[in-house]
Amino acid sequence: MIDLVALDADDTLWHNEPLYRTARDRFCALLGEGFAPDLIDERLYETERRNLEHFGYGVKGFVLSMIETGLDLTDGRLAGADVRTIIGWGRGMLQSPIRLLDGAREAVEELSRQFPLILLTKGDLFDQESKLARSGLGPLFKGVEIVSEKDARVYREVMVRYGVAADAFVMVGNSLRSDVLPVLEAGAHAVHVPYPITWIHERVAPEALADAHYHQVANIGELPSLLRRVGSG
Amino acid sequence: MIDLVALDADDTLWHNEPLYRTARDRFCALLGEGFAPDLIDERLYETERRNLEHFGYGVKGFVLSMIETGLDLTDGRLAGADVRTIIGWGRGMLQSPIRLLDGAREAVEELSRQFPLILLTKGDLFDQESKLARSGLGPLFKGVEIVSEKDARVYREVMVRYGVAADAFVMVGNSLRSDVLPVLEAGAHAVHVPYPITWIHERVAPEALADAHYHQVANIGELPSLLRRVGSG
Repeated sequence: MIDLVALDADDTLWHNEPLYRTARDRFCALLGEGFAPDLIDERLYETERRNLEHFGYGVKGFVLSMIETGLDLTDGRLAGADVRTIIGWGRGMLQSPIRLLDGAREAVEELSRQFPLILLTKGDLFDQESKLARSGLGPLFKGVEIVSEKDARVYREVMVRYGVAADAFVMVGNSLRSDVLPVLEAGAHAVHVPYPITWIHERVAPEALADAHYHQVANIGELPSLLRRVGSG
Repeated sequence: MIDLVALDADDTLWHNEPLYRTARDRFCALLGEGFAPDLIDERLYETERRNLEHFGYGVKGFVLSMIETGLDLTDGRLAGADVRTIIGWGRGMLQSPIRLLDGAREAVEELSRQFPLILLTKGDLFDQESKLARSGLGPLFKGVEIVSEKDARVYREVMVRYGVAADAFVMVGNSLRSDVLPVLEAGAHAVHVPYPITWIHERVAPEALADAHYHQVANIGELPSLLRRVGSG
């Protein structure tokens, strides 16, 4: 039996990582040929990781990390116009149209007729609420949980909040690190829907997935039939 | 009867606006004597207000607004070192120790023995969760709701979520704009606990407060006895 299905949002229902990739490419172009793109990527990721504990996930923290990385790499000589350009990219990312993944709308509609659905996403509250509103999928969810981190404790709290047992809870998402491993740790079902590109921070070792509660589908369109099997078995 | 008491956090339970005031003062000093503090304040507030719809509330958006205002006022000549300094203030604000208001801990402890309490605050999810954890008050609340905006719709959703009628719900906070007016609009009780300084964005005209559900106390220590009266009357 499945009593509640929770869906991740970024790169599970709509494209998100490409926005960050585009910004990273523009950032490399802005800094110019004096720096190898690999070096810039590495330094930017270092800054992002260091800033996560202060800024959390989301566009605003990413923008601040780009500015800091640009200042670090140029010994503080990043031009004011470049700082303004980077902030402008952030504003653009926050307003960017939502591009749903192929089949996402149909899959969520079909699931919503069979199971209570919630959206369960980490990141910046303001940004995530805005994306859900722009996606048009809001009415298909009975609840929306935006959390600052996805760990086993948070998943257990969500199950308590909705009054469901671990064995009757399914989490669906593209991140093994956030949507799968902590869910298995909490004793619930996890469905991995891979996305073509994954932020390095979200990657995990594949051997961590040996768990009967772990499922994988090739794309979100396969989700309704998988969950019918899980729910009846 | 009172079935649920919701408390605001910033400048209701702990000092917050002084952190922003200090940053504004430092920002004026950083920009130097070429600019009148009033002009800087005005331009910064304009930038903040324009950015609210993109960045929402909280430190990260405030930092981005300071950088943008600095670039505007200096025609893009804000030095890289100054940009780094401003980001450093933001990181400092996010890590700053929580200073509870006088009597706040005692009031919340007393209230928690009489009523189910929730914390209901707007702002940046990551920042607010971190502040609650550092405050040590977390265990006194049966729920925590961090919302991107406090309007009548959001208050109604919270009442539905906790299964309480408007007449049995009390919101307590320092902001007339966020903690009082939309609560009265939703038909619930609102208690205003004034804080000595208020961000201009949160100010309202006093005549909007003519409502039998409006209450005021001079400080949070008076809250338990007020709520006993409201709850029995």
